[in-house]
Amino acid sequence: MSFKNMTIDELIGLRDELWAKYEQKKSLNLDLSMARGKPETAQLDLSTPMLDKVRESTHFICEDGMDVRNYGVLSGITEARRFFANILDVGMDNIVIYGTASLTLMYDTVARAYIKGILGSKPWCKLDKVKFLCPVPGYDRHFTICEFFGIEMINIPMDENGPDMDMVERLVSEDESIKGIWCVPKYSNPSGIVYSDEVVRRFARLRPAAKDFRIYWDNAYFIHHLYRDNQPEILNIVTECEKAGNPDMVYEFCSTSKITFPGSGVSALAASKANIDETIKFMGAQTISHDKVNQLRHVMFLQNKEQLKEHMMKHADIMRPKFEKVLDMLEAELGDADIATWTKPLGGYFISFDAMDGCAKKIVEMCSDAGIILTDAGATYPYGNDPRDSNIRIAPSFPPLEELITACEVFIICVKIVSIDKILESKKKGYIKTNGTYYR
Amino acid sequence: MSFKNMTIDELIGLRDELWAKYEQKKSLNLDLSMARGKPETAQLDLSTPMLDKVRESTHFICEDGMDVRNYGVLSGITEARRFFANILDVGMDNIVIYGTASLTLMYDTVARAYIKGILGSKPWCKLDKVKFLCPVPGYDRHFTICEFFGIEMINIPMDENGPDMDMVERLVSEDESIKGIWCVPKYSNPSGIVYSDEVVRRFARLRPAAKDFRIYWDNAYFIHHLYRDNQPEILNIVTECEKAGNPDMVYEFCSTSKITFPGSGVSALAASKANIDETIKFMGAQTISHDKVNQLRHVMFLQNKEQLKEHMMKHADIMRPKFEKVLDMLEAELGDADIATWTKPLGGYFISFDAMDGCAKKIVEMCSDAGIILTDAGATYPYGNDPRDSNIRIAPSFPPLEELITACEVFIICVKIVSIDKILESKKKGYIKTNGTYYR
Repeated sequence: MSFKNMTIDELIGLRDELWAKYEQKKSLNLDLSMARGKPETAQLDLSTPMLDKVRESTHFICEDGMDVRNYGVLSGITEARRFFANILDVGMDNIVIYGTASLTLMYDTVARAYIKGILGSKPWCKLDKVKFLCPVPGYDRHFTICEFFGIEMINIPMDENGPDMDMVERLVSEDESIKGIWCVPKYSNPSGIVYSDEVVRRFARLRPAAKDFRIYWDNAYFIHHLYRDNQPEILNIVTECEKAGNPDMVYEFCSTSKITFPGSGVSALAASKANIDETIKFMGAQTISHDKVNQLRHVMFLQNKEQLKEHMMKHADIMRPKFEKVLDMLEAELGDADIATWTKPLGGYFISFDAMDGCAKKIVEMCSDAGIILTDAGATYPYGNDPRDSNIRIAPSFPPLEELITACEVFIICVKIVSIDKILESKKKGYIKTNGTYYR
Repeated sequence: MSFKNMTIDELIGLRDELWAKYEQKKSLNLDLSMARGKPETAQLDLSTPMLDKVRESTHFICEDGMDVRNYGVLSGITEARRFFANILDVGMDNIVIYGTASLTLMYDTVARAYIKGILGSKPWCKLDKVKFLCPVPGYDRHFTICEFFGIEMINIPMDENGPDMDMVERLVSEDESIKGIWCVPKYSNPSGIVYSDEVVRRFARLRPAAKDFRIYWDNAYFIHHLYRDNQPEILNIVTECEKAGNPDMVYEFCSTSKITFPGSGVSALAASKANIDETIKFMGAQTISHDKVNQLRHVMFLQNKEQLKEHMMKHADIMRPKFEKVLDMLEAELGDADIATWTKPLGGYFISFDAMDGCAKKIVEMCSDAGIILTDAGATYPYGNDPRDSNIRIAPSFPPLEELITACEVFIICVKIVSIDKILESKKKGYIKTNGTYYR
C-alpha cells in the first residue's frame, strides 16, 4: 500500500512499530558496510592462482626480449598490450599499459592536460576556467579529481539510455572552457545504466568548441556482467570516434581491478595513436616502466577474451545472489510503498536507490547510527551535493550474504521511517517528533 | 707516460695503432651497453624467491586487518611502513609507502607542488619562475622532471664531500624562486660521492628565502655498498632537519628497485609528519591504494634491516668484480696517460669518468659506432649540456663480466684516440685528419 495514501494515525502507528525494530537492530552493535564497490573474499580467491604465475626463470623473458624483472618497456609488454587490444577491440597502437589501477591513470591523464596541455593546446593551469560535464548520479572519485584540479563541474541528467545528449551537445559546442565529460558507459556507477548505441554515436559525433575537449570514458565494468544470458554490449567508442572524424576525442580507461585484485591489477588506456604517443612521451618523465612482472602474471592467468569471460562468470556467480537478494527485499518491502525507486542492473557493482526528495542524508545517517555504513549521501553528485537529496548508492558486493541481509533490513527500516517523517511533515505541520516518537 | 709529453710523431704513431685496434673491434659487430644502472640477471635471481611469498590464504590479512588483495590502506600497510621506518631510521608517522618506483614518487611530489603548492604556499604553476639547484654531474631523470615542469635548473659543482655548500647557502637564501635541490647523497649518481656529515648538517641548517623550498633527497643507494668492510654512512637528513628547526624542509625518497626488481619494487617517502599528511591527502585524489600484495611480498622476503644488509651483500658479490675489473683496466691503460680521471666508488651503480675537455661527446659517439652504448654525453648535466663536454657515466652492472671487458677495451681505445686528436689539435694546427689517419 502506498504510504502516501495512509492516514496520519496509520503512519504514526507504523512508525512506532518500525522504530521499535530499529532500536532492536541498533542494540546488536552491528558493523556492516554497503559503502564501496569491493569484491568479497571469495571473489579474490578466484584470482589467487594468478600468484603462482611468473615465478620461474623460463617465465621472465617477455616477447620484447626483456626480462620483466628489470627496467624497460615503458608502454607495457607486448603480451599485455595485445591482451587489452583484444578485449577492448582496438589496435595494438591504440593501447598503453599503465600501473595498478585506472583511477591513477585517469588522474594522471587529467594532470598532464593541466600541466602540459593536450596535443599542443594550452595547459589547463594557464586557463582562467576549466569545466567538466558530469552525468549524475556518478562516481565520486571522478568528482574528487575535478575538485583537486579546481575544475568546475556541471551536472548532466541521465535516463536509462545514458546522459541527456541534447544538453551535452549544446554545452560542448557553445563553451570552449568545457574540456571533458566523465562517462561510465556500461553498468554506470551507480545506476547500472548501459549507454544506448544512439547515445554512443552522438558522443562520437560531438562538435566541441574546445580542441582539447576529451570524453573520459571510464569503461570500468566493460565485462562485469551478472548474467550469462543477458549481456548488453555498447558500441566501441574509439572506433565510433574514428568513423565520425573525431579520432582524438576520447580516452578510454579500463583495468583488472575488479577482475583480479583491486589496487594490485593492471590498467590500460585506449585511444587514438596521437593520444597514445603523447601519453607515452609525457609518461616517460614519470616512470621508466610500470610493473611488468604483474603485467605478465595477469596475461598468463587471464590469457584472452574467452578465458576472461569465463573468469568473469565466476565473479557473477558470487555477485548475482547478492544483487538478487537486495532487489527481492526492496521489492517485497518497498515495492508498493511509493516512497522510493531503484535500478535493477545487469552488471557492475551498484544499485542506485532514489528515496523521496530530502530523505537521503537522513537515511544514511540513521543507518550509520545503527552500524550500517553506506556511501555518503550526495557522494554520487559533484561537490557532494545532490540537489534533491534523494540518491543513495548501494554496494552489495562486499558483505557475505547473511550480513548483507541484515544490512538491507536496517536500510529498509530507515527508508520507511524517514519517508514517514517526510510524509507526516508534508501532511500536517505541528507534529512534534521527540526521540523517535510522534506526539500530537 | 703522459700523452701530453709525447711528441707529435709518437702520438700519430700511437694513434695509427689504436685506430687499427678500433677497426678490428668494430668489425666484430658488437652490441653491448654500459648505459643504464640495471642489475644483471644473477642479481634479479637473488630476489626471485620473493615471488613465492604471499600466495596462500593465511598470508593475505595484513596487520591493519585488511585483505591485501582488496582496496584500502592508502598510506601503505603497517608492515611496510615499519620496514621502511626501520631501514631509514625514522618514525612510522614519517613514512608513506608509494608505488613501484621512487621516480614516480619524485615526479608526483614535484607535480603536487606544481598543481597544489606545498603546505599552503602558492602552486608553482601560478608562479612566473621556479628554479631548482642541480649538483652536477647528476641523475638525468631528475633533470627530465624539471624540464617537464619548465623548472629552470642551476648547476652546482660538487667535490668529494658533496655539493658546493657556500654556493647552495647563498643562492637559496637570496632567491625565493629557488624551490628545490636534487641530491643523491650516498653513492651519488654518477660520481659515487658520499656526502660528508658537515655537508648534511649545512643542508639541514639552510635558511631558504622560499618557505616551500625542499631538499629532494633521493637516497636511491642508501644500502647499496660494494664492500663488507668499508661502508660509509651519511647522517639522517630527516633527523638533522628536525634538530635544526627545519623539520619540513626535506623529502627523502627511496625504493627497492635495485634491491629486488627494478620497476616492480616498493618505494617510500620519508619526511616530517606535516609533509607526510599533506602527501597522503593529495594522494587520495590519485589512488585508493598502492599494490599491497607487492608490499607484503617485499616485507616477507626482506624482513628487516639485518636481512636486507645480508641480501645487499649478495648483490655486492656480483657487482664488485665488475667495478674492480673496470677500475683495474682504466688504471692499467689510462693511469699515467694524464688524459682522464675517474671515481672509485664504494657503492652505487656508476663510475663517473672525466675525459679531457671537449672529448666526451666524441668518445661516446665512437663507442656507439663500434656497438658500445654509453649514457649520452651531457646526460649527467641539466639540459644535456655538460659545459666542459668531459663527463661520461659508466654503468658496469648489467653486462656479464666478459662483455664488460670487451666494452671497456673499446671505451679505452676511444678515449685514447679522441684524446690524441685533442692534443694534436692543440699542439699544432694544420694537421688534416682523414678517415682516422693524420697527414702532415
